[in-house]
Amino acid sequence: MNTLLGQAVLSCEQFDLHTLNKLFTLADILQPVAYGKAYTNVLEGAVMGSLFFEASTRTRLSFDAAFMRLGGKVSSTTGVSFSSIVKGESIEDTARVISGYFDVLVVRHPEEQAIYKMAQATDIPIINGGNGAGEHPTQALLDAYTIHNEFKLNGKSMDGCKIAMIGDLRYGRTVHSLVKLMSLYKNITFTFASPDFLKMPEYITEFARERGHTVIETDQLKHGIHNNDVIYATRIQKERFTEGEETRKPELSFRINQSMIDQYAMKDAIIMHPLPRDSRENANDLSNDLDNDPRLAIFRQSDAGVPARMALFAMVLGVDQGIENTIKPAGWFVP
Amino acid sequence: MNTLLGQAVLSCEQFDLHTLNKLFTLADILQPVAYGKAYTNVLEGAVMGSLFFEASTRTRLSFDAAFMRLGGKVSSTTGVSFSSIVKGESIEDTARVISGYFDVLVVRHPEEQAIYKMAQATDIPIINGGNGAGEHPTQALLDAYTIHNEFKLNGKSMDGCKIAMIGDLRYGRTVHSLVKLMSLYKNITFTFASPDFLKMPEYITEFARERGHTVIETDQLKHGIHNNDVIYATRIQKERFTEGEETRKPELSFRINQSMIDQYAMKDAIIMHPLPRDSRENANDLSNDLDNDPRLAIFRQSDAGVPARMALFAMVLGVDQGIENTIKPAGWFVP
Amino acid sequence: MNTLLGQAVLSCEQFDLHTLNKLFTLADILQPVAYGKAYTNVLEGAVMGSLFFEASTRTRLSFDAAFMRLGGKVSSTTGVSFSSIVKGESIEDTARVISGYFDVLVVRHPEEQAIYKMAQATDIPIINGGNGAGEHPTQALLDAYTIHNEFKLNGKSMDGCKIAMIGDLRYGRTVHSLVKLMSLYKNITFTFASPDFLKMPEYITEFARERGHTVIETDQLKHGIHNNDVIYATRIQKERFTEGEETRKPELSFRINQSMIDQYAMKDAIIMHPLPRDSRENANDLSNDLDNDPRLAIFRQSDAGVPARMALFAMVLGVDQGIENTIKPAGWFVP
Repeated sequence: MNTLLGQAVLSCEQFDLHTLNKLFTLADILQPVAYGKAYTNVLEGAVMGSLFFEASTRTRLSFDAAFMRLGGKVSSTTGVSFSSIVKGESIEDTARVISGYFDVLVVRHPEEQAIYKMAQATDIPIINGGNGAGEHPTQALLDAYTIHNEFKLNGKSMDGCKIAMIGDLRYGRTVHSLVKLMSLYKNITFTFASPDFLKMPEYITEFARERGHTVIETDQLKHGIHNNDVIYATRIQKERFTEGEETRKPELSFRINQSMIDQYAMKDAIIMHPLPRDSRENANDLSNDLDNDPRLAIFRQSDAGVPARMALFAMVLGVDQGIENTIKPAGWFVP
Repeated sequence: MNTLLGQAVLSCEQFDLHTLNKLFTLADILQPVAYGKAYTNVLEGAVMGSLFFEASTRTRLSFDAAFMRLGGKVSSTTGVSFSSIVKGESIEDTARVISGYFDVLVVRHPEEQAIYKMAQATDIPIINGGNGAGEHPTQALLDAYTIHNEFKLNGKSMDGCKIAMIGDLRYGRTVHSLVKLMSLYKNITFTFASPDFLKMPEYITEFARERGHTVIETDQLKHGIHNNDVIYATRIQKERFTEGEETRKPELSFRINQSMIDQYAMKDAIIMHPLPRDSRENANDLSNDLDNDPRLAIFRQSDAGVPARMALFAMVLGVDQGIENTIKPAGWFVP
Repeated sequence: MNTLLGQAVLSCEQFDLHTLNKLFTLADILQPVAYGKAYTNVLEGAVMGSLFFEASTRTRLSFDAAFMRLGGKVSSTTGVSFSSIVKGESIEDTARVISGYFDVLVVRHPEEQAIYKMAQATDIPIINGGNGAGEHPTQALLDAYTIHNEFKLNGKSMDGCKIAMIGDLRYGRTVHSLVKLMSLYKNITFTFASPDFLKMPEYITEFARERGHTVIETDQLKHGIHNNDVIYATRIQKERFTEGEETRKPELSFRINQSMIDQYAMKDAIIMHPLPRDSRENANDLSNDLDNDPRLAIFRQSDAGVPARMALFAMVLGVDQGIENTIKPAGWFVP
């Protein structure tokens, strides 16, 4: 059964393990299309509206590519303020009007509640492309899909996974969403390594513990790197700091570089990051001296966003059945 | 005969009753495609250029959806100033160059004359998406099409229609355009209800009177609501006020809410609005306490924009004949 | 042999005469499609990413139209600063991530080196849409293609061509690129007419001289007009002047108008301009009193951009073979 059919996709809490596995299987089938080696017209005639009330180039382009590679067309709007909203229009009116034009909407909005109001006002499916400090469910999907892919290559099982999340765990909504998805598996060990003022919120640690998983919290970067299957780094998101926090810096370094990895990481660990990473020297982020380390999975991870989002669209719009029979080889140059 | 074939669509004055009826019949045929229940590729291979020199998200997206749902592709540009115009380029040069890329252009421009200069400089069809204080012909088309649809359901005829226009009748170009279109029918009664300083311009009242219609002017909101088949509300467009007008407010309320409607409106009246409506409390606009009243047609009205614009494109580009035979059922989820 | 297959197109120096001729032949075949009289789906399923880090509406739209008219889809991003780059992301990371979504990228960037860094970081083809003061290879391609087209009509050969370049030869990257392409032919006479402080850079004059061509430099406009097959005018690009230059003006006029042309130009000369031209009165640019002179080729030139870019995409993506068999007549209105 396809529990996503016709649904708004607003939160990771909507997914169960069965749906997640179905989505990953579909993403595997769609990989050649996602990577430009084949194409399909399964969504020929369908039109997606893309509404980014907050800029996020990579997320927007990944959704664009996913929908277009299914054979659909996309109409995009970007910019912090919409002309009609400035004129006193409610977010519900905006959503209701625009939903009359399209078959599916992708929305990113800086306010956490806006996407819920919009979904309430419309009858077409709405996909959450990031709602303020709330969730980013498709990022979590592509993250879990990446772990699934890498583990398959390394002969590991998702159950029993040891995953560390490092850096800004307070404002980093991608890690909040990923904890929820990973908690669907069995016996996960989460290590949350962050400066104390950027700790994982308690409702997230509770979420994991209630489902029987192990949670370790630390302010030592090395504990995040040591003995973990997945090292998930994040950028310190100063732009989300509240007033008075702007000048705070971690007392201990959270820069992950080759020497840290060589000293502490497992031979078959995978290093992930939701990107963008801060590549400036001395940033408390993933160093680019790791770019030739095969454990660095960050680009395989961002590449995985297209098949994962394609699979999501296919399930939400009910074109997942027999999709493999619609795939034809690409006629153009493939690297 | 299709009098729109290959034509620039700049003003409502270009339409005659025959063309209007033809367009509505075509829009009826295209409704399943417009609402995502079916699709067509009749414009496969055609490319539309969308040039918004002034922001208008909903209008732009409605045009995008209309062209894409006919099977065409769209290239969009938004933003008040074009890079080349800043460098001293004439609007005629801009139009001539860009018209060389596309099969049809949709243009919105804050200056009333710009669209006429552009149409002069090009040989592909140009559609006016709103030219300053001038016209907004496709808004008038979808408004008239909505009245046509609602009247059909209610067993009413367009001839003899009693329509009230309420609010800012001075700067509201959509009502100017709609008066012109409605004047094509017989024996219309127009009631123009507005604060005195936002009265309907005399050339519009003259336009209607010269064609034998009845015009009533009032500054009492209730006269606009009472005994009219159509109650067409508009937002007070402060952003178009000239200097010194910014602080002016109507002395009498022009807020239309459920209690006003219950007290004065006909049982089968329809309440329309070009949107956006100002939903803030105490705004002199349509209140959202009316959202569950079946007479509120504002979303059926905005939905009607896609089939109306599709029909316009089909006639202008000459693909209207036999278009029903190109329509196939949608393969994806339909709400 | 197709030397462009799978290649990044960064500089005019990549082209040899064989490739140029092949591209022009292909552009000839694609003209009916480029001008909306026919269509092809040869790139059905392919997706192009368009990244404009610097505004250039006409260049962007011309690339959009070219790719769409080959049957592909386009996802566009404009704006000087990308959200992720503000957060400290390297241009290489941006390029690597975004290249994972698309089959080909078109990039315009204000910094000369950025496009080279991006091409290094990706394995899909990248097309240079203008890199700061560097090059604009597709503009040079469409310029050379225009000369080729006009000469064919006039019974002239590219070898032996006398071409004048006039105006801002220092900052005008299009003339730098065009000198490189024209130098592939034999026995070219270049006349560079400019104010002294906007002279052609020495490495460009050397480039032409080393290949056996004649170079004449002058500060007299009339020498640029007199006895030349091609009169290539450019706009004085004040926005690229360095500090202290803003107020500099040519001492002699560089305004090319009808009386100058009547007095000095050949009967079958062609007048070109990369556009936008500065149409304001007394601008040192091409006057619009020439608009009815058949020698004015500026709009035939801008129109030539679509077939030239289509041919480039077709060769880079390897769909050039047998492309003529995929072309079908347009079903819509053609002016």
